Amino acid sequence: MAILFLSPSDSSAEWLPELHRQLPDREVRVWPDIGDPYDIDYAMIWRPPAGVLKQLPNLKVMLSLGAGVDGVLSDPELPDLPLVRMVEPGLTEGMTEFVVLQVLHWHRQMEAYRAQQRDGVWRQLPQKLARERRVGILGLGVLGADAARVLTELRFDVAGWSRSARDLPGMTCFHGAAGLAAFLAQTEILVCLLPLTEETAGILNWETLAALPKGACVVNVARGGHVNEADMLAALDSGHITGASLDVFGQEPLSPDHPFWSHERVIVTPHVAAVTHARTSVGHLAEQIRRFEAGEPLENLVDRKRGY
Amino acid sequence: MAILFLSPSDSSAEWLPELHRQLPDREVRVWPDIGDPYDIDYAMIWRPPAGVLKQLPNLKVMLSLGAGVDGVLSDPELPDLPLVRMVEPGLTEGMTEFVVLQVLHWHRQMEAYRAQQRDGVWRQLPQKLARERRVGILGLGVLGADAARVLTELRFDVAGWSRSARDLPGMTCFHGAAGLAAFLAQTEILVCLLPLTEETAGILNWETLAALPKGACVVNVARGGHVNEADMLAALDSGHITGASLDVFGQEPLSPDHPFWSHERVIVTPHVAAVTHARTSVGHLAEQIRRFEAGEPLENLVDRKRGY
Ligand SMILES: NC(=O)c1ccc[n+]([C@@H]2O[C@H](COP(=O)([O-])OP(=O)(O)OC[C@H]3O[C@@H](n4cnc5c(N)ncnc54)[C@H](OP(=O)(O)O)[C@@H]3O)[C@@H](O)[C@H]2O)c1
Ligand SMILES: NC(=O)c1ccc[n+]([C@@H]2O[C@H](COP(=O)([O-])OP(=O)(O)OC[C@H]3O[C@@H](n4cnc5c(N)ncnc54)[C@H](OP(=O)(O)O)[C@@H]3O)[C@@H](O)[C@H]2O)c1
Repeated sequence: MAILFLSPSDSSAEWLPELHRQLPDREVRVWPDIGDPYDIDYAMIWRPPAGVLKQLPNLKVMLSLGAGVDGVLSDPELPDLPLVRMVEPGLTEGMTEFVVLQVLHWHRQMEAYRAQQRDGVWRQLPQKLARERRVGILGLGVLGADAARVLTELRFDVAGWSRSARDLPGMTCFHGAAGLAAFLAQTEILVCLLPLTEETAGILNWETLAALPKGACVVNVARGGHVNEADMLAALDSGHITGASLDVFGQEPLSPDHPFWSHERVIVTPHVAAVTHARTSVGHLAEQIRRFEAGEPLENLVDRKRGY
Repeated sequence: MAILFLSPSDSSAEWLPELHRQLPDREVRVWPDIGDPYDIDYAMIWRPPAGVLKQLPNLKVMLSLGAGVDGVLSDPELPDLPLVRMVEPGLTEGMTEFVVLQVLHWHRQMEAYRAQQRDGVWRQLPQKLARERRVGILGLGVLGADAARVLTELRFDVAGWSRSARDLPGMTCFHGAAGLAAFLAQTEILVCLLPLTEETAGILNWETLAALPKGACVVNVARGGHVNEADMLAALDSGHITGASLDVFGQEPLSPDHPFWSHERVIVTPHVAAVTHARTSVGHLAEQIRRFEAGEPLENLVDRKRGY
């Protein structure tokens, strides 16, 4: 029996040594060199091409290399097998670093100071303290809750929004469609950390952006599909939205002629907010295989109906 | 008797209402309208012109509006009276925000990503986690210790350097001249939060910058006098130092033709890392007056011999 490593973007050179160290008895095959498909019992996957997984007749568990599984669930022929998503400390830590960086960047008016520097202007701008700045996080899962924890430590006035009711220390929690308007109305810096599902696709659109107070900033580190890009550009150009940090896009790589590249109040990063690190995550994958074979429940199972 | 408010840069419009609220029985005079100098018993000061304070015969206590008192101690005719420096939550919080922002900026290679954005390049760069990045803080006082606390919370590998031996949770502490070399040799991102004294002036020079590992970054949020600016430029241009965030300068405002303004790996901000906020600090000033009049010891007294 063998493990299939299937990722068009993760380097097998980084992963294979860790996999061999932590799963010394297992054979690992790297897609597209599947060998005999009957041998594969586990698949570690990131954005697998549609139809590939159903060709593995003895597959038992699908282990996502990413936290978001929209790129797996989009396969219309996905086998009806357990799908485990990625929760690992390196991914969570990297995301919290990146979110805190972008929130502080807008909070401390660094775009304005960089513009002043370009013009050789020495001028102190009026500045709020973090405790006077309201940050709102869409999605209070593993990643949203950890970012919220550190932002609270920095004394930001943090609120969050989730599907079901949550209760997290030191912050205000909203939930459900009914809670969205009140959440947005009080958010000066909005962070999106939702999974991409039917319900959340396009959630950052003209209507929701207009519901933020004038001058708000947006940090999208979830999925490009959360943003209606034409609406985002219009909201930026109208001045209602002061700035946006965008790490994910409807089409990746971002098309060379996309207006985001050169927009003076948009920060574009190439989907680097958080990556899964082999060195901090193979333990989680090995543990799921151990659990499955011992008949114990798998962790971080995806609920196909909810979509995350 | 009256309080003198003496600051060429703080707005008395922000301070007077707070002073009246928290010290309702006191008369407050705003320099240069001193009135009868015999009336002044307390002076709240920021960079007072040399010689002004010695003209107040009944002055009892000098209360600094800033955390650093180099701009007070530089007065050769400074009266031999108690000098209290500023320690207040808003100042500490603002500094920690700014330090965390600049450290994350260099840690997450945002200058490189901004350059890629200008060129329309979509490329993921190899990235360490915070736990793999060594941050070193010069100065473990009120501000250095608070920044260290939050950087540790973000899981950076934090070390610090102070005059006397310190023991702070979750980090390595070095001290004294003998500890400096070992501290520098292991620091990838260096933050300066020292007071400016005879001992610390020019501490960021060719020799100490060369003692950092190649590729290190520097964040100076203490005083311009800590930096030998020619050495800093040479270290940047040699490639030994990758980048610098500089908030303070030998001459402020920074002269219009200074090479820092246009250096592509220098971030210039106009001395805004942390400011004293009237709304969070007048309580501290009122408390010192209360203590003095009740015969209780003053807090945060400056030691003139040490210079901070
Ligand atoms: N840019 C990057 O580099 C990067 C890296 C990693 C992950 N990501 C993205 O980050 C996302 C979040 O990851 P995670 O591990 O934090 O996920 P998670 O633990 O599953 O949390 C998802 C959160 O979103 C909430 N949510 C889901 N559907 C909702 C709806 N319709 N309305 C309101 N709230 C809803 C959930 O509410 P409940 O609490 O009620 O379930 C939960 O709080 C991933 O799906 C992925 O797309 C991006
Ligand atoms: N840019 C801005 O906006 C801004 C705003 C506020 C303050 N500042 C600057 O920040 C500085 C630090 O403020 P703070 O409130 O943290 O000061 P603090 O509480 O007095 O702490 C000073 C620290 O520096 C250490 N130190 C002093 N002289 C030293 C020497 N010769 N060798 C090694 N370590 C030495 C002290 O060591 P010990 O622990 O052994 O005493 C202490 O840890 C201020 O002086 C000011 O210049 C800048």
